Amino acid sequence: MRIIGIDPGLRHTGWGIIDVSGNSLSFVAAGRINPDADMPISLRLLAIADGISDIVNKYMPAEAAIEETFVNKNAKSALLLGQARGSAMLSLAQKGLPVTEYSANRIKQSVTGYGHADKKQIQTMVAILLPKMDKTVKLTPDGADALAAAITHAHHRGAR
Amino acid sequence: MRIIGIDPGLRHTGWGIIDVSGNSLSFVAAGRINPDADMPISLRLLAIADGISDIVNKYMPAEAAIEETFVNKNAKSALLLGQARGSAMLSLAQKGLPVTEYSANRIKQSVTGYGHADKKQIQTMVAILLPKMDKTVKLTPDGADALAAAITHAHHRGAR
Repeated sequence: MRIIGIDPGLRHTGWGIIDVSGNSLSFVAAGRINPDADMPISLRLLAIADGISDIVNKYMPAEAAIEETFVNKNAKSALLLGQARGSAMLSLAQKGLPVTEYSANRIKQSVTGYGHADKKQIQTMVAILLPKMDKTVKLTPDGADALAAAITHAHHRGAR
Repeated sequence: MRIIGIDPGLRHTGWGIIDVSGNSLSFVAAGRINPDADMPISLRLLAIADGISDIVNKYMPAEAAIEETFVNKNAKSALLLGQARGSAMLSLAQKGLPVTEYSANRIKQSVTGYGHADKKQIQTMVAILLPKMDKTVKLTPDGADALAAAITHAHHRGAR
C-alpha cells in the first residue's frame, strides 16, 4: 500500500511517499511545495492544494498522514499555519484519501524510538528506515518530516 | 456585481451574498454550513469547502470577502480556526474568486461606523443596509457577520 505524508507550512509544504508491503517499507518520492510568498494568501493556499493534487495524481497513494503540529507559537502564527494545514488536509480529502493525524512526539517516537529527537536525527533515521532510497536523494527537513509521518502511519496501521 | 462574504468556523461557517449596483446594496441570500462535529477534521473541512462550492455554483458571485479573524484565543484554538478559514479561502480560490481579507474592526467600522460594535448591533445594521432583505429572513450571527464582510468589500471597492 502506498502512503503520502505531509508536513504542512505556508512557506514550504513537505511531502513524502512510501510503499508498504508487510513489514517492508520503501521510498517512492519526496519533495516540497514552495508557494510564492508574494501572492495573496488564498493563492498560496491554492498552490499548496494544487501541488498536493498533482502529486496524488502522479503517485496515487491510498492513504495520507499529517503531523499534528505542535503549537508553541503565538496565536497569529498558529492561525496562519492552520490555514496551510487545513488546505493540505482539504486537498487530500478532495482526492478521497483518508487523512490520519499524528502528534509530533508520536512521529519522533515511531521513527527514532525517542519522542524528543531533533530534525537531524529524524533525517538520519528516515534514510535508514527506507533503505531503497537512492543515496543521491537529498532530503529537505520538511521532506524528511513528511516521510516520517508516512512511516508512522505504516507502523500504526500494522499495529491495528 | 455580486459579492459573497464568509465568516469561517469549524462548527459553523456563515455565508452571505449581496448584489452591488452603484451605491445600492441588496440582499441575495445568507445561511450557514454546519459540518458534522463527529466527523474527522479532514471531512469537516471538506464539508465546508463543498458547501461553499455549492453556494458559489448556485449564486455565481464574482468576488469574495472574508473576516481576518481577530485571534484572542490560545494557539490551539487558532490552529483549528485557521484550518477552517484556510479551507474556506481555498474553496473560493478553487472557484476562481479573488478573496479579500478585512479585519474585524474594519468590518464593524464599515457597517456600524463604530470599530467595537457588538454582534447585535451588526445584525441590526446589516438589516438596515440591506433594505430589500425579506423581513422573514432570520439571520444567524455568522450569517450577519458574513453579510457584513460582503458589505465592507462593496464599500471598499467603491472607495478604490
